[in-house]
Amino acid sequence: MEFVAAPARLSTADALFEHDFAQRLHWSADTDAAIEQRVADILADVQQRGDAAVLEYTARFDSLQAADMAALELKQDELKAAFDSLPAEQREALESAARRVRSYHEAQKKANGESWSYRDEDGTLLGQKVTPLDRVGIYVPGGKAAYPSSVLMNAIPAHVAGVQDIIMVVPTPKGEKNALVLAAAYVAGVHRAFTIGGAQAVAALAYGTATVPKVDKITGPGNAYVASAKKRVFGIVGIDMIAGPSEILVLADGTTPPEWVAMDLFSQAEHDELAQSILLCPDADYIAAVQREIDRLLPEMPRQAIIAKSLTDRGALILTKDMEEACAISNRIAPEHLEVSSRDPHKWEPLLRHAGAIFLGAYTSESLGDYCAGPNHVLPTSGTARFSSPLGVYDFQKRSSIIEVSEAGAQTLGKTAAVLAYGEGLQGHARAAEMRLK
Amino acid sequence: MEFVAAPARLSTADALFEHDFAQRLHWSADTDAAIEQRVADILADVQQRGDAAVLEYTARFDSLQAADMAALELKQDELKAAFDSLPAEQREALESAARRVRSYHEAQKKANGESWSYRDEDGTLLGQKVTPLDRVGIYVPGGKAAYPSSVLMNAIPAHVAGVQDIIMVVPTPKGEKNALVLAAAYVAGVHRAFTIGGAQAVAALAYGTATVPKVDKITGPGNAYVASAKKRVFGIVGIDMIAGPSEILVLADGTTPPEWVAMDLFSQAEHDELAQSILLCPDADYIAAVQREIDRLLPEMPRQAIIAKSLTDRGALILTKDMEEACAISNRIAPEHLEVSSRDPHKWEPLLRHAGAIFLGAYTSESLGDYCAGPNHVLPTSGTARFSSPLGVYDFQKRSSIIEVSEAGAQTLGKTAAVLAYGEGLQGHARAAEMRLK
Repeated sequence: MEFVAAPARLSTADALFEHDFAQRLHWSADTDAAIEQRVADILADVQQRGDAAVLEYTARFDSLQAADMAALELKQDELKAAFDSLPAEQREALESAARRVRSYHEAQKKANGESWSYRDEDGTLLGQKVTPLDRVGIYVPGGKAAYPSSVLMNAIPAHVAGVQDIIMVVPTPKGEKNALVLAAAYVAGVHRAFTIGGAQAVAALAYGTATVPKVDKITGPGNAYVASAKKRVFGIVGIDMIAGPSEILVLADGTTPPEWVAMDLFSQAEHDELAQSILLCPDADYIAAVQREIDRLLPEMPRQAIIAKSLTDRGALILTKDMEEACAISNRIAPEHLEVSSRDPHKWEPLLRHAGAIFLGAYTSESLGDYCAGPNHVLPTSGTARFSSPLGVYDFQKRSSIIEVSEAGAQTLGKTAAVLAYGEGLQGHARAAEMRLK
Repeated sequence: MEFVAAPARLSTADALFEHDFAQRLHWSADTDAAIEQRVADILADVQQRGDAAVLEYTARFDSLQAADMAALELKQDELKAAFDSLPAEQREALESAARRVRSYHEAQKKANGESWSYRDEDGTLLGQKVTPLDRVGIYVPGGKAAYPSSVLMNAIPAHVAGVQDIIMVVPTPKGEKNALVLAAAYVAGVHRAFTIGGAQAVAALAYGTATVPKVDKITGPGNAYVASAKKRVFGIVGIDMIAGPSEILVLADGTTPPEWVAMDLFSQAEHDELAQSILLCPDADYIAAVQREIDRLLPEMPRQAIIAKSLTDRGALILTKDMEEACAISNRIAPEHLEVSSRDPHKWEPLLRHAGAIFLGAYTSESLGDYCAGPNHVLPTSGTARFSSPLGVYDFQKRSSIIEVSEAGAQTLGKTAAVLAYGEGLQGHARAAEMRLK
């Protein structure tokens, strides 16, 4: 069977551009009421019956029978054995990626994640204490989409933050374990791991069971059941973002080999038929050249069916008036991955306000960022880069304000506080401040 | 009517302590299915009909009729007029509080909120760009619980972050406006304000209407309808935390005048019958003295009915073995407000791992922090300080990773990425990396 990848060809000069553009961008995470209800039932059941419920759901959904939860724990020696079993090339790649991810997140912690304080003129001490979470759970998808790189990207920032207890859950349908995933857990320093998944794994982490310890936060991607479960336990534990389909946007000035750009568009499209790959470029000839490379390269791709459907249904090659307009459109999209494939990327970078990660220059393929450049590959999707950030050390830290008011400070602050407290009708607040006045 | 405030008297030496302690702490935000459904309907209606729906709900729920949404906008000159109408004492208190809150959040931004980057040995540039959100919505409760201090605490960090468009919504049942709230909006630099509230205001901010601009994030406290609406629009926009009842925990070594501690316990109890005030102290005589002060001071309090019910139903005076044990119990509670009422607070502070804000020393009454010390008074409740943080400048910023791989860097990184990508079955990713190899 021959596949065709035909992304929409749009031009901002077209009278219908706004309409076509809106249609192409439209995506909504429809909530499925049936899934919601099943997830609610599973959560309630695990909360009540603990391990027994988790074992039953694991048998039912993952076709994995176990006598007890202990049998579903992956011990450290099994993680190490998985690592040792890998070809040298894969061991080295995992370790090299882990090293770079670790050093990036250490820089991130140093730049933005340390405690701070100052004293004002009254001698009052003000600041914030930044501390790691005690215990976190990392959800790692299993089965056909098993990503060892996601283990590194979730566990390493937690480790760098100083989390003492990192619990991984990964479903292993029919008991089939992915050696790369287990090895990644070993390299990343996961403390405990269980072969459970779905809403039942999220429930076990959120409520705790006799065997699975209750965590403070759950991160990591998953299917619709996992996403729904995470949303439901939010508040009992912290969660990271709820991820939508992956996206790439390439801003091209026409100086990058078009086959590089075509392959970069493929690299998101191959994730998922719902993934979105968009090219913005002011050069019509270059856009045509990229489409020719898409046609030429597609038959070579093992995942060509997914790529063709993703590009045809959701992809777009958009001709813009100039690079400034391309940047403005990019800001409206707020893409997860944004490649600035230009000879002069630093000219455009200051114009780019919303993106999960910005890849500058022709050599910075998005895939380098996915695996080993250092920054996190867990990024905000579906336009949420307008208000949220890559997963980072800060997701595994929390802050406590520190206030020490001196006796002198209590005199001036006390008067202000009392006026405002009486204004709000909170006399206890006012009196507490006034009692400290001389 | 005479009220009695009888907090539970517990001792960690008691065999039943764990049971009694768990019972006292128990609180759950029961979701009310009826509220959930009504909120879902209101959101869908506002999403579809926009201004017309908001006007109808405002007429129905707030008894406020208006010809059009423009009539529900508070213009800048009205905010300024409210400020000018206040007694000098209140004007000065608002301005002084705003000044201190601003300078604290400026320090916070400088310490933890600036962009950063570095180059590695290959010349690869890595970092993060920190940018403000474009537009945020601040929900301010109206009616009986109208808190101008909350306007300052939400709007000022947004302002310091660099948000260009701060939209306030505040319900004004029957059209009654609170001059202090309007004046606080003026002082804090709110850009636009509408007298709407409830789920319909959250919907207007999340989806946008012809009159109310769509925002990127919604912060601020509200009733059960507002909380449910915020939780539902999470993902379309960002939200801050969902707040539970207010809490204070006082760790006392017995050196602070007991009436100060009694009044500090009142100052949370007076918020709400569900609020929780707890004292932890290793000195039984001191605990008895605090109870005597509670009995003595209660009749003087205008909100004595609420205080008595809150302390009796949810308060506790807990005798501990020593201060170390008191600190350990405090960590289990992870309180919103934590006072270390000790002659030597810096001895205990390092032992305190989970709290929204830590108030050190006898002069630092929690109420100073509520109004004017500088740190934010929007803090994680119900134990969520285990994984979340005070509202801050960081809530109004987001981060984009920056990656610029040099040609040399692409050679080493490309090989690692390709090995891992092939291992995950993502050939497009692998080929994109390999194309950059010489």
